[in-house]
Amino acid sequence: MKQTYFTPGPAELYPTLYQHLQTAMDEQIGSISHRSQKFRDIYKFTDQQLRTLLTIPDTHGIFFTGSASEVWERVLFNCVEHESFHLVNGSFSRKFYDYANSLHKFAHLHEKPFGEGFDYADVEVPEYAELICLTHNETSSGVQMRTADIHKLKRKYSKKLVVVDMVSSAPYPDLDFSLIDSAFFSVQKAFGMPAGLGVWIANQACLEKAERLQKYENLTVGAHNTLPTLWSHYKTFETPATPNVLFIYLLGKIAEDFNKIGIDTIRKQTEEKARMLYKFLDASEAYSPFVKQDRHRSQTVVVATTQKPSADVISGVKQAGMVVGTGYGKFKESQIRIANFPAVSIEQVDTLINQLQK
Amino acid sequence: MKQTYFTPGPAELYPTLYQHLQTAMDEQIGSISHRSQKFRDIYKFTDQQLRTLLTIPDTHGIFFTGSASEVWERVLFNCVEHESFHLVNGSFSRKFYDYANSLHKFAHLHEKPFGEGFDYADVEVPEYAELICLTHNETSSGVQMRTADIHKLKRKYSKKLVVVDMVSSAPYPDLDFSLIDSAFFSVQKAFGMPAGLGVWIANQACLEKAERLQKYENLTVGAHNTLPTLWSHYKTFETPATPNVLFIYLLGKIAEDFNKIGIDTIRKQTEEKARMLYKFLDASEAYSPFVKQDRHRSQTVVVATTQKPSADVISGVKQAGMVVGTGYGKFKESQIRIANFPAVSIEQVDTLINQLQK
Repeated sequence: MKQTYFTPGPAELYPTLYQHLQTAMDEQIGSISHRSQKFRDIYKFTDQQLRTLLTIPDTHGIFFTGSASEVWERVLFNCVEHESFHLVNGSFSRKFYDYANSLHKFAHLHEKPFGEGFDYADVEVPEYAELICLTHNETSSGVQMRTADIHKLKRKYSKKLVVVDMVSSAPYPDLDFSLIDSAFFSVQKAFGMPAGLGVWIANQACLEKAERLQKYENLTVGAHNTLPTLWSHYKTFETPATPNVLFIYLLGKIAEDFNKIGIDTIRKQTEEKARMLYKFLDASEAYSPFVKQDRHRSQTVVVATTQKPSADVISGVKQAGMVVGTGYGKFKESQIRIANFPAVSIEQVDTLINQLQK
Repeated sequence: MKQTYFTPGPAELYPTLYQHLQTAMDEQIGSISHRSQKFRDIYKFTDQQLRTLLTIPDTHGIFFTGSASEVWERVLFNCVEHESFHLVNGSFSRKFYDYANSLHKFAHLHEKPFGEGFDYADVEVPEYAELICLTHNETSSGVQMRTADIHKLKRKYSKKLVVVDMVSSAPYPDLDFSLIDSAFFSVQKAFGMPAGLGVWIANQACLEKAERLQKYENLTVGAHNTLPTLWSHYKTFETPATPNVLFIYLLGKIAEDFNKIGIDTIRKQTEEKARMLYKFLDASEAYSPFVKQDRHRSQTVVVATTQKPSADVISGVKQAGMVVGTGYGKFKESQIRIANFPAVSIEQVDTLINQLQK
C-alpha cells in the first residue's frame, strides 16, 4: 500500500512528479549532453520558473550543487575571509556553524535552546563578522524565523552579507531578494522531489567577495563549484561539471506547476494546513506543540511532543497509511515531526489529524 | 523517435534502468528517510554489488558524493598535506591538476600531448609527492592507461597514495584494490544512469592520512563529505547528509544486473565492440583513430578524426537515430567521440559502423 509521507525530508513526492519523470524518460533527458542547447534550455527554463516563484531579481544567479549541505560549505568558502556569524537553535543551524569551524573560519555563535526562536531585537552581530548565517526554518525543532526580522537584520547590518538557509521551507518564505544576498534549499522538502540536488541563489556582492578572496587575499575558495566558476558558466546556462540534469529538469517542471497555482495560494494553503495542525495540537491532551511562541512556530515542519512514546504514535499512523517523522536527536522518542509541504493536501492533513486523534 | 546515445557521458541509459526506476517509484524510494533501516539496506546492497563487481576488499569503504568532479576536490583535501603528482594528457586529467592548484596544494605536473598515453617506464614521481593522481581513461582524448602500468607504479612508490580516476571506464578496468588506495567514478558513463551521483572508493590509508591532517597538522580537509565523516557514517551504512537515495538504489540494481552477466563477460564484450570500432576506423578512408598507440587506445571512449567536418558526420548519424559525441575543445570540429559502454550492444555498434561507412 502506498503511504502518504508527512516526513520532513525526504518527503512526499509532489503529485505531478511521476508524470514529469515519465516525460523526461520519453525525451531521454537522462542521456543529453550538459553542453548541448537542449540542456541550456532546461537550465534557463528552471531558472525562470524559480525566479518567478521566489521573485529573484537579475542581480542574483541561481546555481545547482549536489545538496544544500554542500552549499553550507560553498558559501562559507566563497563569502568569508575570517569571520562568520551564526544564529543556532537546533541541529541544522549548528551544522552550518560546525562547517565554518571545519573550514577554520572564526565562527561567532549566538545560541538559543532547542525549540526557541530568534527575534530581530535579540541579535547583535559582532563588528568583524562578514557573513550573517540565518536558518529560516530549523528542521530539527520546528522553529521558524520571521522574514520581517531577517529583513530588519540586513537593513541594520547592510554592509555585511546575509545568507538564509531555507532548506525545509522554500518556497514558503517571502524573502526580499533586493535585500538578501544569498539563500539556498534542497529539492526533497517542499518541492516534493527525490533528494540529490541543492539550489544556491547568490548575488553579485557574494561573487565580488569570492573574487576578492581569490585574487587579493590569496585565499582558497575551494576547487569544486566555486562561485566564480559557477557564475562564469551560468552566463550561458551551463555548469562547471556534469550536474544532475534530470533533477534540474524536474525542478523546473514542479516550479512551473507551483507558478500555475500561484505562490500566494501556495503560501495561504501552507498557512491554512499549519493552522489546522497547531489548532489540533493546542486542544489535544495527547499532544502539545513543542514550540511555545506562536511567532516562532514553523509553517512547514510542525513538531509535537507526544504523551505516549512517539514510536506508538508513529506505528498507529503508519497502519492508517501515513508516515510522520520521529523527533530529532534526544527528542526522538518523545516528539513527532509533521512536514507540511505543498505535496500534501488539506484533505490529507485532515485525515492525519483524525488518525492522531484516535 | 528515440535515439541511441553513443555519447561519452551523459550516455545511453542501461536498458534495465527504466524498469528499476518504475520499481523505485512504486516502492516510494524517493520519499524514504536516509536515517531509516530501508535506506541502510539499500546502501548495503549497493555496496555489496559494487564490491563484487570491482573486487573491492574490506579495507576500502565505498562512499557517495554529488559527482565525480567533487571527488577530485575531496581526495586532494583529505589525502594531500603539501604535494600531489598528476599525469596529465587531456582536459579532465588537467582539471584534476587544476583543482589541486585551486586548493593551494603544490601540484607536480607530468604532461603529454593530447592523444598520447603514459607507460610505467615514463613516470618518475617526485620524492615529496604524497598522492599520485592517475586518470585511467581520459574522456577528452580517448586515451587509456593500462592497469598493469598503474599497478607497477604503486609497487614502485608503495609509500605514496595512489588514486585512479576511472570516471569514464568503470567497471571496465581490472584495478587491483589490494594495491590501489582510492578510485572514483560517476554513474552517467558506463553504468548507464542519469548524472547526479559520484562514487568514491578509499582505503584505511586514505582515512588515516585525513585524520592525521586534521588532528596533527591542523589542516582543513574541507567541511562537507570529508573522508572521516563519510567513513564514520559508513560504518552503519549511512551518509553525513541527505544523499541521492534514488540513484544509490538504481546503481545497486544496475550493478546487480552487471554481476548477473558477470564482469568478465562485460569486459570481453567491451573489448569486442572496441575491436570492431578500431578495426573499422583503421581500414576507413573517411576516419582514422586519433590515438596512434594501440596500447593507449581507450576501450570505452573511441575517438576518431574525421575527413569531413565532424558536424556533417554527427548530423548524418543522427538522421539514422544515433548520437555520437563531438571532439573535445579545439578538436570539436575535426573529431567524433564514440562511447562504448555496456548499454550499447554489439548489434548497435554494428549499426553505427554501417552508418558511418555510408
